[in-house]
Amino acid sequence: MNVEIITIGNELLIGQVIDTNSAWMGQHLNNAGFDVTRITSIQDKKETIISTLNEALLRSEIILLTGGLGPTKDDITKETLADFFNAKLVFNETAYNNVVSFLKGRVKGINQLNKAQAYVPENCDVINNPVGTAPIMWFENCGKIIVSMPGVPFEMKTAMSDEIIPRLKSIFATGHIIHKTIQVFNVSEAVLAEQLEEWESTMPEYISLAYLPSPGKIRLRLTAKTNDKKLAEENILKLTQSLYTIIGDHIFGEEDKSAQELLGEVLCKTQKTLAVAESCTGGNIGHLITSIPGSSVYFKGGVIAYDNTIKEKTLGVKTEALELHGAVSQKVVEQMAIGAKKLMHSDYSIATSGIAGPDGGTNEKPVGTVWIAIAGDFGVYSQRYNFGKIRLRNIQRSSDTALILLLKKIINK
Amino acid sequence: MNVEIITIGNELLIGQVIDTNSAWMGQHLNNAGFDVTRITSIQDKKETIISTLNEALLRSEIILLTGGLGPTKDDITKETLADFFNAKLVFNETAYNNVVSFLKGRVKGINQLNKAQAYVPENCDVINNPVGTAPIMWFENCGKIIVSMPGVPFEMKTAMSDEIIPRLKSIFATGHIIHKTIQVFNVSEAVLAEQLEEWESTMPEYISLAYLPSPGKIRLRLTAKTNDKKLAEENILKLTQSLYTIIGDHIFGEEDKSAQELLGEVLCKTQKTLAVAESCTGGNIGHLITSIPGSSVYFKGGVIAYDNTIKEKTLGVKTEALELHGAVSQKVVEQMAIGAKKLMHSDYSIATSGIAGPDGGTNEKPVGTVWIAIAGDFGVYSQRYNFGKIRLRNIQRSSDTALILLLKKIINK
Repeated sequence: MNVEIITIGNELLIGQVIDTNSAWMGQHLNNAGFDVTRITSIQDKKETIISTLNEALLRSEIILLTGGLGPTKDDITKETLADFFNAKLVFNETAYNNVVSFLKGRVKGINQLNKAQAYVPENCDVINNPVGTAPIMWFENCGKIIVSMPGVPFEMKTAMSDEIIPRLKSIFATGHIIHKTIQVFNVSEAVLAEQLEEWESTMPEYISLAYLPSPGKIRLRLTAKTNDKKLAEENILKLTQSLYTIIGDHIFGEEDKSAQELLGEVLCKTQKTLAVAESCTGGNIGHLITSIPGSSVYFKGGVIAYDNTIKEKTLGVKTEALELHGAVSQKVVEQMAIGAKKLMHSDYSIATSGIAGPDGGTNEKPVGTVWIAIAGDFGVYSQRYNFGKIRLRNIQRSSDTALILLLKKIINK
Repeated sequence: MNVEIITIGNELLIGQVIDTNSAWMGQHLNNAGFDVTRITSIQDKKETIISTLNEALLRSEIILLTGGLGPTKDDITKETLADFFNAKLVFNETAYNNVVSFLKGRVKGINQLNKAQAYVPENCDVINNPVGTAPIMWFENCGKIIVSMPGVPFEMKTAMSDEIIPRLKSIFATGHIIHKTIQVFNVSEAVLAEQLEEWESTMPEYISLAYLPSPGKIRLRLTAKTNDKKLAEENILKLTQSLYTIIGDHIFGEEDKSAQELLGEVLCKTQKTLAVAESCTGGNIGHLITSIPGSSVYFKGGVIAYDNTIKEKTLGVKTEALELHGAVSQKVVEQMAIGAKKLMHSDYSIATSGIAGPDGGTNEKPVGTVWIAIAGDFGVYSQRYNFGKIRLRNIQRSSDTALILLLKKIINK
């Protein structure tokens, strides 16, 4: 079933805001069995909105609009839709109750602008918006569906997940869609593709495979579109099992979760704690870990040991190790990991030391060189990498790899 | 002058990749005086590309295409353009030299796929691509311009900055565009708009103002489109000066740079050093600081003091302060800042302690409460905030505000 997305807002066209909504919608619609065939971003202009809508209706069954529903003057999507359908704007109880209940406790009283938000085109069905004041409007017209929702990502996502996708699925039976994600690391996409060539050829036709690379890891996503759910599940299970025989060393997770999420879950379950000692990653590993709600249960803290004297003073790295091998070395990174574990009284620790770029390399240790160490009841384990000289990418890959390295070590026990 | 952007690639429609190219292009074209009126993302399908191109040509003078220029089978933009113009694919010297010089030193020899990249439609002008193998093709047709470039952000940006925008400017004289960005913090958009209402009304018609809010700060961007450059610059200078009289306390920078960049520049210039002690921000301030190349000159390091015992042990926070006031308190955050400065022998320090959410609040200290302290030759300064209970947003706002707070204190001296 073809879906088009139309995002409305001047801020998208002057590059003030990156349109992240469309990608999120594309991904979730795709997972639900719908094909997004076109994404169009346009200005808040009546004639443009109407002509774009007309063109989209010639091509597609479902049109999803975001943006232009705020209470201020420059937002005109609602009025334009009323004109488009030649419908009057009428007071809507659902929309009004939504505004009232959302603003309750936040502001004193409801002003004229908020009241105006309760008026919607008479031919629409109002969908509840529990996280904002804008009405979400569902139109059906000549067998086609048009939905208008706010451009605020949180409001759009709530509406899509809770109401719009379930409704679309119930109207357009799209069969069963089964997804399975397997996450791998420490291998390049090209090498992986070569290793999996034969395995891929054994896949039934209704199952497809996507490689989704990101810094430090690759997600392999199997998608089955089928009417025989049981058979598909059996096949996906078999495919996953044989994947372990081929590339088991590289697999670190079977769910579509971040390394810090998966590591957090393991630490919670086993009631173990973690500390970090970061040089080249400069705090990013700590940031990733603490971006997970509840991480204070298992994360003790860390040292950002940028300066060498800090490595010595707080982590107990030996002066001779620094002098003999340099800060970016196996000796130093292992001492950092041991030092952090000791200082923070944690069960596990992660340490990094490298040259993130763009400058600072030598022949022996070129820009991009990173040492990662992990410590725990298994002792200390360390490895050398080169993650390239684009600074931010190097930091991301180092951080992700370090988290996965520890995760893999713990789950392999 | 109207510009439309067409981005081509299945990965954009299934949400595997977020289209960040369009926003970047929109911003840079806007700065150069061109109006982007539509952004369309479509699949790698010949008929779709052709019909989208035809529609765009009815509306606009300039069409910029990205994507679909790789050497593999699924990339069909070049062949489609040849069909569109009814042109033959011919061997192009410029395109071939580009491939050869790019691959030199990277791979041994040039394979068939690379050679094929040197064939382009006979009616195009090939623009040099110094950072990739795909040809960048410039077409002129009935007074309209169509440019096809790679979807790889780095290649697109290099081509746009070095060649395409300068060429467009020389063809379509767009007058002078002057921008001035003033960055403010510690004030909401609504309050700011109220305070600036009168000031805004004094602006000449050819100068426009945009509010660009992001977590922790708002950028005010003045844009003048004019033929009288000197007068415009004078007017913008006057407007900026009077802005200091009205909201000087909130201004922390006049350039479009991040807080960590601006702070890094000040520290470099004054040869001072910095350390951090992070609780609720969990390493993110360290991460932001160290994402700037060369930060090792002024950044000593920090402590991620998530666990209270770490606050005591490494930063010297007093047990009674923790017991009496709790970790999220003025006393503790100030002791953290002083402790970090002392431990790291730095000139300045930043400390944070808060409840980032989504849970963990009390009546007295609701979720979102954050204390920030800065220390330096000015002594210790601290302030309490509430940055809301969306965890990542809270962390971002806390980090940005902490950096700006120190920056502002240093430049105000």
